Amino acid sequence: MNNEYFMETYGFTPDDLDKFFEEKKYRQLRQMLNDLNDVDMAEYLEQLENDDHERALLYFRMLSKDNAADVFSHLPVDTQESIINDVNDRELRVIIDELYVDDAVDMLEELPATVVRRVLANATHETRSLINQFLKYPEDSAGSIMTAEYLALKKEMTVFNAFDYIRAHGQDSEQIYVLFVTDAQRHLEGIVTIKDLLMNSYETRIAEIMDDNVIKCVTTDDQEEVANQFTRYDLLSMAVVDQENRLVGIITVDDVVDVMEDEATEDIEKMAAIVPTEKPYFQVGIFETWKSRIPWLMLLMVSATFTGIIITNFETALAACVALTGFIPMLMDTSGNCGSQSSVTIIRALSLGDVKLADVARVIWKEVRVAFFCGLSLAIVNFAKIWIVDRSLFGNFGITFYVDLVVCLTLFVTVICAKLVGCTLPIIADSLGFDPAVMASPFITTIVDAVSLLIYFSFARMLLGIG
Amino acid sequence: MNNEYFMETYGFTPDDLDKFFEEKKYRQLRQMLNDLNDVDMAEYLEQLENDDHERALLYFRMLSKDNAADVFSHLPVDTQESIINDVNDRELRVIIDELYVDDAVDMLEELPATVVRRVLANATHETRSLINQFLKYPEDSAGSIMTAEYLALKKEMTVFNAFDYIRAHGQDSEQIYVLFVTDAQRHLEGIVTIKDLLMNSYETRIAEIMDDNVIKCVTTDDQEEVANQFTRYDLLSMAVVDQENRLVGIITVDDVVDVMEDEATEDIEKMAAIVPTEKPYFQVGIFETWKSRIPWLMLLMVSATFTGIIITNFETALAACVALTGFIPMLMDTSGNCGSQSSVTIIRALSLGDVKLADVARVIWKEVRVAFFCGLSLAIVNFAKIWIVDRSLFGNFGITFYVDLVVCLTLFVTVICAKLVGCTLPIIADSLGFDPAVMASPFITTIVDAVSLLIYFSFARMLLGIG
Repeated sequence: MNNEYFMETYGFTPDDLDKFFEEKKYRQLRQMLNDLNDVDMAEYLEQLENDDHERALLYFRMLSKDNAADVFSHLPVDTQESIINDVNDRELRVIIDELYVDDAVDMLEELPATVVRRVLANATHETRSLINQFLKYPEDSAGSIMTAEYLALKKEMTVFNAFDYIRAHGQDSEQIYVLFVTDAQRHLEGIVTIKDLLMNSYETRIAEIMDDNVIKCVTTDDQEEVANQFTRYDLLSMAVVDQENRLVGIITVDDVVDVMEDEATEDIEKMAAIVPTEKPYFQVGIFETWKSRIPWLMLLMVSATFTGIIITNFETALAACVALTGFIPMLMDTSGNCGSQSSVTIIRALSLGDVKLADVARVIWKEVRVAFFCGLSLAIVNFAKIWIVDRSLFGNFGITFYVDLVVCLTLFVTVICAKLVGCTLPIIADSLGFDPAVMASPFITTIVDAVSLLIYFSFARMLLGIG
Repeated sequence: MNNEYFMETYGFTPDDLDKFFEEKKYRQLRQMLNDLNDVDMAEYLEQLENDDHERALLYFRMLSKDNAADVFSHLPVDTQESIINDVNDRELRVIIDELYVDDAVDMLEELPATVVRRVLANATHETRSLINQFLKYPEDSAGSIMTAEYLALKKEMTVFNAFDYIRAHGQDSEQIYVLFVTDAQRHLEGIVTIKDLLMNSYETRIAEIMDDNVIKCVTTDDQEEVANQFTRYDLLSMAVVDQENRLVGIITVDDVVDVMEDEATEDIEKMAAIVPTEKPYFQVGIFETWKSRIPWLMLLMVSATFTGIIITNFETALAACVALTGFIPMLMDTSGNCGSQSSVTIIRALSLGDVKLADVARVIWKEVRVAFFCGLSLAIVNFAKIWIVDRSLFGNFGITFYVDLVVCLTLFVTVICAKLVGCTLPIIADSLGFDPAVMASPFITTIVDAVSLLIYFSFARMLLGIG
């Protein structure tokens, strides 16, 4: 725990908490604990739980009803489980009742079945049926990240009525900054912000000030699509409706921020040939990390059989001109780098919505031109470098003019091929319904390796007459 | 423009707008244009601007004062420039006056100097000095993304006074959901949310309900650090203070969402050896794309000279046992992939704050163990694959037991080296104040290539007695 941060923010440190505990000054301790921000308290409790389970439980019980549920929702699932196992049914009922449905669902998805049964048994009938409904939404859908705690106003209300309604029902709502307007059948009709309410007179009817061009999503929409809408329109919350346009929940920007972070991490991991795990680095065990890394390593290693075969087939060519072998790593790496530049750029543009499937021709046309200039500049520089450094400086006179030419022609052509492969494969993957992120560096490298070797040996045969 | 989306959201399509324009039904047209969401209107205007500049300007002038500034802030900078050049000084003054300071600053940073002078000449004295102050904050600092339009309450106010104050001054504030409490010298004392105000009686004093444990940042803090605080504490806005704890601005979550997206894109681009450009794919020209890709390609190509030298030095060994050459691509690719898995994982964990500099020993210890198991499983599978596929199936009898052994021992050792290099380099870069993201795949690959070749030829010398 960061003592300095604690001191600056709260005026006391975790060590002070220990002192009050040892001196049995429980009243002060209780007040200090309830003073902590939910997130800080959750982190503190998680660490305490590892050292002294009994004390962690005591501290948790010292929290007020509201605080307890909020802190609970920020705990990692193993700490949640250990608390659930130790509190009595009455205490459990209070926690479950105060938890937002989306947090409860997140927790239940990871708890063992026996614990889930006890939790559901202690939920009210209403909460239980809500939870069961939420558990059915597919992973990564809008439904899976929405919450059921929102305020719905009616068109006929005045601003005055609306404030009354908010004062009466707002306490349990996750946010009250954007309010939704529905008809008697819960069909979404418009939205109105607290700012709209405050900036208009008390007699104004909601119908007059609500915005009926609502940006909304359907429960089955992809969460990444929802996140892109939040970014595009600078939203604080979004209505989630069912197929009949009935309001069923809202998504708030704090959950979207988490989605964006997770999606970016997932993309980055896939690009590096890692199977995503969705957990912070140190929370993933050795075996689990191994399991997330080995599949792609294995697959890519075995698929290198092709490059092996190509080289074996040209062994005589390589024996006839030994200088050629030395340039294989450079050709493979450069074309691999070129391919991954294109693929990574396109993958990111696809996931941000900057590039769409329909743009494939524009993408290829742009990449070909960029590749032409990249290939040309690399080939020219490399030609000079080989001649000056490798031949003259290091005295490798096996490198003739034609060898240099073969290397640099290969470089030029493979750079173009690599960029073409790099930009088209992610779009193809996307159009087939796969995640384009797996078409990144390692995958592209394996393909481009084989391509560059084939081009290399073809030029060698043409210009050097070997192979 | 997406007709379907327009029809569904607004009940009319861009074609309808064209029709009203041709029929000179300007009153209806004006109403329809003002009905559009700012972001949609900006996108529509941007496209219209390319086809028919005069009409785009006419449409822009049809927007109400409030709408005009909001739409203007969502336009790309070249469209902003063309509008500024065509409106008269009075119109320009209205736009500048209505723009939020952070949007104005973003625009001014990209406009040519002559246009900037005209904009500043038409700003009020107050706006001008604010803009000048904001322009001084370093790029990527908290100061550079904050806005000056916020509401500051006083401790002595009652809830009733606060509502009065919000009604009087809230119209120009970027958000009114979180309010800041300052003393007479503008020192930050606490925060209070609209929800707190609504849930307490009108007589309650702000001092009683405000939260004095404020999560805040200083103007010079890094924006990525600020974004991590938003994620950690689920914030909607954050106070920005100067070195003397005086409130100077606020950062809102919508700007943080953009920061997060930009930072993730920047990391991804750096990981793929691209110099970041901060613009959507199609907005970057061919030459600019070339410029962002060629530096690393050049550097990495030239540094492959080392692998060339290593291979040249072992030419006799390769000539003595030609089968060895065929495995070079597989060894290089697999170790490159292993290295980039580790480096990318660590880079992402560093930027999310999951791993800190102080964790370096824990990271190495974890990676060594993961690498041991990855190396072991890859080596075993590869040994069998070479024996069964390459030797028996393809009849390459140059691959003796000892050749197979050399390849797989090399694989095992290089996997461990690659993961070690991959996890330590980003941490070292971070501790030296460089961005760890440049220590990703391409950079690691170049180092690991040389390492794996050296290990390969050492084992070949030991076990095959060649070289």
